[in-house]
Amino acid sequence: MAEELGEREIIEIIFKCLESMPNAPVPFGDDASAIDVGGGRLAVVKTDMLVGKTDVPPGMSLWQAARKAVVMNISDLAAKGAKPIGVLASIGLPPGLAKGEIEEIGRGLNEGAREYGAYILGGDTNEASDLVISCSAFGICEKQRFMKRSGAEPCDLVAVTGFFGKTAAGLKILLEGFSAPPKIKNVLVGSVLMPHARLKESLILAQTWAVTSSIDSSDGLAWSLHELSRASHVGFTIDFLPIAQEAKEFAEAHNLDLAELALYGGEEYELVVTVKPKLWKKAEEALRKVGAPLIKIGFAMEEPSLSLKTKDKMVSIEARGWEHFKMPRASKH
Amino acid sequence: MAEELGEREIIEIIFKCLESMPNAPVPFGDDASAIDVGGGRLAVVKTDMLVGKTDVPPGMSLWQAARKAVVMNISDLAAKGAKPIGVLASIGLPPGLAKGEIEEIGRGLNEGAREYGAYILGGDTNEASDLVISCSAFGICEKQRFMKRSGAEPCDLVAVTGFFGKTAAGLKILLEGFSAPPKIKNVLVGSVLMPHARLKESLILAQTWAVTSSIDSSDGLAWSLHELSRASHVGFTIDFLPIAQEAKEFAEAHNLDLAELALYGGEEYELVVTVKPKLWKKAEEALRKVGAPLIKIGFAMEEPSLSLKTKDKMVSIEARGWEHFKMPRASKH
Repeated sequence: MAEELGEREIIEIIFKCLESMPNAPVPFGDDASAIDVGGGRLAVVKTDMLVGKTDVPPGMSLWQAARKAVVMNISDLAAKGAKPIGVLASIGLPPGLAKGEIEEIGRGLNEGAREYGAYILGGDTNEASDLVISCSAFGICEKQRFMKRSGAEPCDLVAVTGFFGKTAAGLKILLEGFSAPPKIKNVLVGSVLMPHARLKESLILAQTWAVTSSIDSSDGLAWSLHELSRASHVGFTIDFLPIAQEAKEFAEAHNLDLAELALYGGEEYELVVTVKPKLWKKAEEALRKVGAPLIKIGFAMEEPSLSLKTKDKMVSIEARGWEHFKMPRASKH
Repeated sequence: MAEELGEREIIEIIFKCLESMPNAPVPFGDDASAIDVGGGRLAVVKTDMLVGKTDVPPGMSLWQAARKAVVMNISDLAAKGAKPIGVLASIGLPPGLAKGEIEEIGRGLNEGAREYGAYILGGDTNEASDLVISCSAFGICEKQRFMKRSGAEPCDLVAVTGFFGKTAAGLKILLEGFSAPPKIKNVLVGSVLMPHARLKESLILAQTWAVTSSIDSSDGLAWSLHELSRASHVGFTIDFLPIAQEAKEFAEAHNLDLAELALYGGEEYELVVTVKPKLWKKAEEALRKVGAPLIKIGFAMEEPSLSLKTKDKMVSIEARGWEHFKMPRASKH
C-alpha cells in the first residue's frame, strides 16, 4: 500500500517502468530535468505538486500556499544554476471556494513567480477533493554552468547558504502546538509560511565554476547530503552544524535535540553544495556580493559514509528526511 | 463557489491576478505556452491535470488513466505544431494503492510518452485523496511553424482530422449506462479509454504553411470553433458535420440528437484548423501521406458568428462544451 511504501519507494517503482532518454543531459532523479536546446544551452524543467493535506500546515493562507507551490519549484531550478523564466500551474480546487479565495491563489502564484523574475505562463483548473497546486517551472541554463548532484570529489568543501532548524521548529509550532516567545515564533513560523529560494545565490555561484555538486535542502539537510553522496560517490564529514539562533533558543526551551532539528527537518530551501577548495574564497566572495553567507560545514572524502563530528565523537548521519507520506498528521483548517 | 463558477470563469479570475510576460511569443490562454530559446526556435510547454473523480470514467484502468494524462498534454503540443520531447509527471496517489497499481501508472505514463517519441523525464509523488496526475509536456518548435489559435482569415477553410461523436457516445455508455451492440460499443468506449493525439498530422501540417490557426478538440468541436473564432476575430459557417459512423448508429438506436453528440461532446483529440484556400490541396495531400484525412467542414467569414448550415436552415452553434466542473457525476469505481 502507498502509505507503507513512502514517496521515494513509489518513485523507484515508477522509475523502473520508464524508458530513459538516450543522452539525457541530466540523469533521472536530479532536482530538475534538462533538454539540450542547442546554442550551448539547456532548457531546465521541474514539476512538484503541493497538496493541501500534506504541504499546507494550519496557519498558512491560500496566498502563501500558492506562492509556496511556485517557490518550491523555483528552488529546484536554482539548485541547478538555472534562471527561471516561466511557470505553469495546474490547480485542483476543492468545492466551496469563494471568488476571493481563488483570487488569493492567483495572486500567490503571481507573487511566487515575480519574486524570482519569472512569469506564470499558463495552466488549468480542475475540481478536486484536496487543494492541489502542481507547478512546473521552466528555465534556461548554460550547459557548462548546470550544477548536478554528481560531481563532488574527495577534499571538496561542503557548504550551505543559510542556518537550519527554523522550519522544523516552525512546523512543531504549527502542527504540534509547541509554544515560543512572539519574536522567535514569528521567525520560526515565518520560515515555514514564506519560504525563499536561493536563486541569486545559485546564479552567482554558477558563475564562479567553484561548485562541483548542488541540491536544495527541501527534504532536510541530512537527506540532501545523502543524495549528493550517492550521486557523487563520495562521503562527507560534517564538522559544523549550521543552526539558526532562533532554533537554538526553541530547542533549549523545549529540551529538543538540536542536531535532530537541523539535520532531519525539511521544507527548507537552502542550497547544499560542494566547492573546490582552491575556489572557496572566490565562491565566498561572490556570495558576499549578493549579501548572502556561504557557510562551510565539512568536507568530502573517498569513503562513502556520512558522519557528524562533534567535540568528542563521530555520529553517523542517517539517510532519513522529510517525506510527505510520513508527515505527522494534524487537524487541518 | 467554485462549483458554480465553472472552469473557464475560474481561469479568468486567476488570469486577472497575473502579470503577463512582455513579448511572450504566444498569448496566455492558447493551447500551450512558449518561450523563445533562440536559434529561431520556441520551447513549447503545456500542463494539464487529470483528476480521478472527473477525468477517469468507470471502466478506465490506471494504465489507461496514466497514459491519458500524458496524451492530453501531447495533444496540446501537437495542436501547436510542436514536437514533444519530455514529459514531467506530478502524481497524487490516494491511500491504499498496491505496488502493482503503482506500476500500472508508471507503465501508462511511459506508454503515453513513447507512443509520441517523448520520454518521461522526471516527476514527484504525493499522497492525495483523489488520484491526480498532473503532466507537463515540453517540446520544441520552429518559431515560424508554431500554429496559434489566432490567425484565421475570412475565406479560410475549416477542417478537422477525424470524425466526431464517438467519445460523447462512449461516455454515455460508461457514465450513464447506455447500451450498444458489442462491435460499436468497443469503438465508442475505446475512443474514451484510448485517446490519440494527432501528432504526426500536426507536424506534417505545420510543414505545409497552409494552416492559419489550430486547436485541439478536447473541449468539444463547438467550443474549439468558438475559441478559434474569438482568438482570430472571424466567424465560421459549418456546412458539414463530420460524424463517425458508429456515433450515427448509436444516436439512431437511442434517438439522440446527432449534432449534439458531434458538436458538444469532449475528450476528443482531433485537430481543428483553418487552412488557406490556395494551399488546401497541399495540406490534404500532406495528411494523405501519413494516412490521415483532412475533412473540410466549413469556411471562415468576417462576421463573427458561428452557424451550422443544414439542408434547410442555419442553426447557431452555441459556445458551450466540455467542462469538468459540470461533468455529469457517476458512481465511480
